[in-house]
Amino acid sequence: MSSSIITPRTLRGFADVLPANARHQRRMTHSIEQTFASFGYDPISTPAVEYAEILRGKGGEESDKQMIEFDDQGGRRVALRFDLTVPLARFVAQHESTIKRPFRSYHIGTVWRGERPQRGRYREFTQCDADIIGESGPAAEAEILAMFQAALTSMEIGPFAMRVSDRRILNGLLSGLELVDHTLPVLRALDKIEKVGADGVRAELLAAGASEAQCQTLVRFAQCQGDTNEATLAAMEELVGEHDEGRAGIAAVARLVDLVEAAGGDPSALKIDPSIVRGLDYYTGMVFETVLTEALHVGSVCSGGRYDDLAGLYTKTNLPGVGGSIGISRILAAIEGSERLSEVPTGQPLVIVTNSGDEQLHDAVSLARRVRAHTELAVETYPVSVKHAAQMKYADAVGARFVLTVDTDSQLSVKDMRTGDRHSVSEVDVPELLTKLVQSD
Amino acid sequence: MSSSIITPRTLRGFADVLPANARHQRRMTHSIEQTFASFGYDPISTPAVEYAEILRGKGGEESDKQMIEFDDQGGRRVALRFDLTVPLARFVAQHESTIKRPFRSYHIGTVWRGERPQRGRYREFTQCDADIIGESGPAAEAEILAMFQAALTSMEIGPFAMRVSDRRILNGLLSGLELVDHTLPVLRALDKIEKVGADGVRAELLAAGASEAQCQTLVRFAQCQGDTNEATLAAMEELVGEHDEGRAGIAAVARLVDLVEAAGGDPSALKIDPSIVRGLDYYTGMVFETVLTEALHVGSVCSGGRYDDLAGLYTKTNLPGVGGSIGISRILAAIEGSERLSEVPTGQPLVIVTNSGDEQLHDAVSLARRVRAHTELAVETYPVSVKHAAQMKYADAVGARFVLTVDTDSQLSVKDMRTGDRHSVSEVDVPELLTKLVQSD
Repeated sequence: MSSSIITPRTLRGFADVLPANARHQRRMTHSIEQTFASFGYDPISTPAVEYAEILRGKGGEESDKQMIEFDDQGGRRVALRFDLTVPLARFVAQHESTIKRPFRSYHIGTVWRGERPQRGRYREFTQCDADIIGESGPAAEAEILAMFQAALTSMEIGPFAMRVSDRRILNGLLSGLELVDHTLPVLRALDKIEKVGADGVRAELLAAGASEAQCQTLVRFAQCQGDTNEATLAAMEELVGEHDEGRAGIAAVARLVDLVEAAGGDPSALKIDPSIVRGLDYYTGMVFETVLTEALHVGSVCSGGRYDDLAGLYTKTNLPGVGGSIGISRILAAIEGSERLSEVPTGQPLVIVTNSGDEQLHDAVSLARRVRAHTELAVETYPVSVKHAAQMKYADAVGARFVLTVDTDSQLSVKDMRTGDRHSVSEVDVPELLTKLVQSD
Repeated sequence: MSSSIITPRTLRGFADVLPANARHQRRMTHSIEQTFASFGYDPISTPAVEYAEILRGKGGEESDKQMIEFDDQGGRRVALRFDLTVPLARFVAQHESTIKRPFRSYHIGTVWRGERPQRGRYREFTQCDADIIGESGPAAEAEILAMFQAALTSMEIGPFAMRVSDRRILNGLLSGLELVDHTLPVLRALDKIEKVGADGVRAELLAAGASEAQCQTLVRFAQCQGDTNEATLAAMEELVGEHDEGRAGIAAVARLVDLVEAAGGDPSALKIDPSIVRGLDYYTGMVFETVLTEALHVGSVCSGGRYDDLAGLYTKTNLPGVGGSIGISRILAAIEGSERLSEVPTGQPLVIVTNSGDEQLHDAVSLARRVRAHTELAVETYPVSVKHAAQMKYADAVGARFVLTVDTDSQLSVKDMRTGDRHSVSEVDVPELLTKLVQSD
């Protein structure tokens, strides 16, 4: 044993996940995987560490600044992945000869960003991405939106609002305003409208070189949200005018809303909102974000869009893509902050088999095995022979449903921790009794 | 699109996981999680990146050399975790006031080692660990072994052989040989006996300062494996003699074999083998390794042991621990090399709904939703309206079970890709028909 203690601590922005949250994470991940699989999506995974050159330069300046880079032992410049979208683009380019297109895949993984940590935002966090690569068209976009709505519903995290737009609408507007050269700074400014408000956006747009009149139009655009999607579409049409790309974007969003409904998505949860532009540079068409109605403060928990040129960094083959990402770590932060969400059940009822000393240990271990094999319950054997009261205290603390104690070779007592009742039964009858008691809950 | 292409590639020792393997990984991970949960183990997770000071110095010199360290943006010396055991020790020390003891937890995560990549060994790989912290005693050790046997069985990866020993037996022998000061080099030498053979071990022991006679005894010890566990125990007893710690280790291993059987473990798969010492410094008692009988070349796929002093680096509280780790990445390498293992089914039967153009897209998407909702099948809508033959070719390539084509508003055709039969049915009858056809497989 070492003489001096190293203070146990984690880096700021890097968090342990304790059992209560980890059970939620497991439950949610499982629901997401089942949903994605039912839409024909296959799992993949890519390395956390890649050549920096591969990961750099497509998310945009701000994401490059936040990328955690270092030199590895062999002197190679490497980085921790910033998202799962850029690695996917590299993946499909690298494996284009073996994968079937359209390629539907999902990926659950950790990503790292060296940004300032704040509530619900970490430097290391988990995302669940799903993407369809190889074809562009409204059916793929509608599928992505409907599938993410189905996944969020299956996760039982309360009501949500998904907001959707299309980058081409803004492109049309910028073209009319003769601001095409300023697309990226305008995107980044508009992306912050919820965070910094209209005045903050206006200041940033002015700093980026827009005139007072241009600022006014852009802010009006970001704020044109009607009571219905139809009203929003009409307001956007008025601002964008006759520009072809803008018109195409508006028509695409309108069609999308219809198809998402056909695909089983919740039309009331899908709102057209031109302020949705996404800060990342790689989006080229549809973009979306999603907030939890009961936890707005954690920000978007599910977002994505179409990125038709991203794989073009790595291959000459045309590999258009559309996808989205669920922010598991942010949702865990939302659950932690909500009494209602944190009460969703996450585990099986627990049985504790007490330990009455070395002589009966063999029987106790064997009983635990039998209960595990013949019920749906989780079963623990208390590992050491301490006082019965201490074992009962542990059972109480961990919320055990039953405590079993071996009395004689074939007889044992069952304590029902919910009712306080005690039952004396023979070992062979235990599984049936426990199952019956649980079913009557 | 960028003008110059960046060659898509991964770092050596860092691998993409393609869908076929990722489906196996998902299936196996799910089985492991279900098994661990049935034993009352809760999930946790810890960050991939920690202060280097926390991670360094307990795995041993060799693991320190292999640790991937770097300075983060704030100039802190950080490292990617080398295993999941040292972070767990830090975790239980840091959260000792909130976690209930005995603390049963499992952790599925990525770890990194800067070792030379070879088949089945990567620089980045996935492990599934499970541990019980807070009590020492044979019941906890037996539970770990029986649970890992149950997990490996549930994974359907063929027969396996688990080999177990106890560090204290070797300690007793070294005490008798007056080699206690050489414990670590002796451990590292014996750990390699399978890889380098008896002569290689002898050379390493001599280099570490052991005499010829001492070498002979140590190699004889590592090789004393009888036909039965009883015979092995007898042979070990003879070599260790009357030394107390050695005797205690031998008695513990004997008792363990009995308890693992009571806990439902497979006694024929559990072999006492004194050559099992594990190279990592932190083990203090029971140690085990497991090989897949049909894929010996990938090495141990499940190993662990007791590490009673590890948390002592971070807290003055006594937190003894015992646990193990399944090497998912190695098992995937084994599956890739085995026709039999790679044939375990991993997914749901797939339905493709063809795309006959924009006018029928709404109906196609709606049909897909209906089939998804009322069957256990995975359903894809073809995202664009290309020629029917191209869509059939895709269905064939991805191994679809059925292809559905909307003919009129209410009528559609089902092609059974297994039999080649075509059925013309009304939309409402589709789920029932598909379920019936799948059940008759």
